[in-house]
Amino acid sequence: MAKVSWKPGTMVYPAPAALVTCGAEPQEWNMLTVAWTGTVCTNPPMCYISVRPERHSHAIIERQMEFTLNLTTEAMARATDWAGVRSGADHDKFRHTGLTPLPGLKVRSPLIEQSPLSIECRVAGISRLGSHDMFLADVINVVADDRYIDPATGYFDLAAARLLAYSHGHYHALGPILGHFGFSVKKP
Amino acid sequence: MAKVSWKPGTMVYPAPAALVTCGAEPQEWNMLTVAWTGTVCTNPPMCYISVRPERHSHAIIERQMEFTLNLTTEAMARATDWAGVRSGADHDKFRHTGLTPLPGLKVRSPLIEQSPLSIECRVAGISRLGSHDMFLADVINVVADDRYIDPATGYFDLAAARLLAYSHGHYHALGPILGHFGFSVKKP
Repeated sequence: MAKVSWKPGTMVYPAPAALVTCGAEPQEWNMLTVAWTGTVCTNPPMCYISVRPERHSHAIIERQMEFTLNLTTEAMARATDWAGVRSGADHDKFRHTGLTPLPGLKVRSPLIEQSPLSIECRVAGISRLGSHDMFLADVINVVADDRYIDPATGYFDLAAARLLAYSHGHYHALGPILGHFGFSVKKP
Repeated sequence: MAKVSWKPGTMVYPAPAALVTCGAEPQEWNMLTVAWTGTVCTNPPMCYISVRPERHSHAIIERQMEFTLNLTTEAMARATDWAGVRSGADHDKFRHTGLTPLPGLKVRSPLIEQSPLSIECRVAGISRLGSHDMFLADVINVVADDRYIDPATGYFDLAAARLLAYSHGHYHALGPILGHFGFSVKKP
């Protein structure tokens, strides 16, 4: 076994495979797939997406200064890939994928009905980094699908939604839970 | 089925469960676990980590302006959790977890021998966002463990490393591959 030095690259994995929706009006509603996304601050809750300037959604988000991050599931794998490969300049991605837009609650971008969780965001700043612009955003609202909420306890079972992950060119299902945060210091 | 509006929160999942190593000298080498990390630009390759200012590693990284992101595996789940819960102010985390530091190749922070892939980073900027500071960083080097490299093809099989994911308070194994990037538009 040895350690091999490569050239610099983008290897922070696994990443989400999220569907970003945008558009202030239904006629410009669009979606694109991003893996370059994550949480950047807990309080206030903030996240980011990085998008190539040449993507059709980029100009929409920059004009609207809002977007919605929709988490994706195993059942949405094909649609998620397709929305990342094709352009909203050429296709109505909702019609083609069969994913259903619902009006946003706190922003004008739509929610995706099939997504277990949608994160409504307002852009706080844009950093021009090179191939990608990073949109730093405040989380304005989180919209959950109540099919994953236990009516007795209120617990949201995100694991039951079977989220999709993206890692090194592959879409993965999430596998079994190996432990919860803090399990290594819990008394038996 | 209905959509339920929650208060804003940090729900971008799945996230990596990465071990960040830092320290310019072996006597201050430390590690901490971060899920708030990801790629922010492909070219030049850039990533970020968000760290609470009160974490022991925060001051080390801010002084050193370098860190290394070590991807973690199922076999490292307990060590990964422990390094996120405990503080380097009170513990030698390498000694306690049994993870092995190796000298960095392009930065002074150590690599973790057990990690399949380590990403050596130089901090390009720090944003004070609230509970967390976001360290934006240039990827200086990627160090791969050759046990995952096919000697015939040179292909690095990251899936074989069985990466760990973090989602909504749980550590997950990565499950099976559902498709590769672009599979939805490939001719059968």
